Amino acid sequence: MNRPSIYLDSLIKEFSKLPGIGPKSASRLAFHILGQPYDAAVSLSMAIIEMKKNIITCSVCGGISDKDMCSICSDDMREGGIICIVESPKDVLTIEGTGGYNGLYHVINGLISPLDGIGPDDLNIASLVERCGQGLISEAVLALNPTVEGDATSLYLARLIGPIGIKVTRIAHGLPVGADLEFIDSATIIKSLEGRVVM
Amino acid sequence: MNRPSIYLDSLIKEFSKLPGIGPKSASRLAFHILGQPYDAAVSLSMAIIEMKKNIITCSVCGGISDKDMCSICSDDMREGGIICIVESPKDVLTIEGTGGYNGLYHVINGLISPLDGIGPDDLNIASLVERCGQGLISEAVLALNPTVEGDATSLYLARLIGPIGIKVTRIAHGLPVGADLEFIDSATIIKSLEGRVVM
Repeated sequence: MNRPSIYLDSLIKEFSKLPGIGPKSASRLAFHILGQPYDAAVSLSMAIIEMKKNIITCSVCGGISDKDMCSICSDDMREGGIICIVESPKDVLTIEGTGGYNGLYHVINGLISPLDGIGPDDLNIASLVERCGQGLISEAVLALNPTVEGDATSLYLARLIGPIGIKVTRIAHGLPVGADLEFIDSATIIKSLEGRVVM
Repeated sequence: MNRPSIYLDSLIKEFSKLPGIGPKSASRLAFHILGQPYDAAVSLSMAIIEMKKNIITCSVCGGISDKDMCSICSDDMREGGIICIVESPKDVLTIEGTGGYNGLYHVINGLISPLDGIGPDDLNIASLVERCGQGLISEAVLALNPTVEGDATSLYLARLIGPIGIKVTRIAHGLPVGADLEFIDSATIIKSLEGRVVM
């Protein structure tokens, strides 16, 4: 087999490293860019570098930001007494995307996972305790994924923050909206029964 | 909804422009790159620009190349008497990937499509006729996609090249290997009957 261009091969190889992109998709993307104007390729190329160069960690919440303090932490219109604890900056965008939350966030950047050697000290937890101790926060909402590591981390944080005198809550686990009981796994049904609410 | 970074948004927007990449995939790619070392982002960014800067059209076959004459056209080990006519440079890679062809190629860079205003003069056909007229080619294999435009272009090329005294063939249309007659469309079955061969 003869490959007509090392530059094309190089780009296909780079695209193949991205999650969810196999060799065929990578080839399709590379040929798409090959057929686009030079400016379009420069835009994409620059956007990658600009993002890596300019995004920093918000000094307050640990999420991503363009400035020292992110646009959420510095927004006076948001409820300053409630703080939502999430695993990663992506979760902030996901919750913001719903439009159903107007409080602040704290990104712990990972989950406690002894098997992977990740303990509480490896996460952005010290600054969370400090924030909670300043007397401005009245409720901390744990919004970690309902996995073994997520649950363990939630429990750890609840025991750590609770004694400060802050109400610690956890987002509900149960049936997704529009789901059919028949196709939901047993663990979720048990969680939804445990978490039943008065109508 | 609050977006914490214009740089992240900008990259998500750029990724969303690529084929088969929706807003969710674009966001996933952007966050993946955010979590990678700076060097990895530079590699991807540079690969895009380098490809756009360096890939040129082969002066002989019209395919992509890093040099004036591509690695296939300049390879003495290939059968110089047979030329495979394809629609795009991508098709060259697809056929090369099979390892079942050792002749040369000619990329016409499109198909005749009167509805889109694309006539024979808009395609890389003049150089094909010139190549065929040099007396070195004994067979031209048409490997255009079996669509309305592909078939029309094949017919046009067969009538154009045939009179030069070159054997013009077309790749077979029929059942894909491993297919089940039950699930194959009628048009393909008719083509496979028409193209039946003696065993």
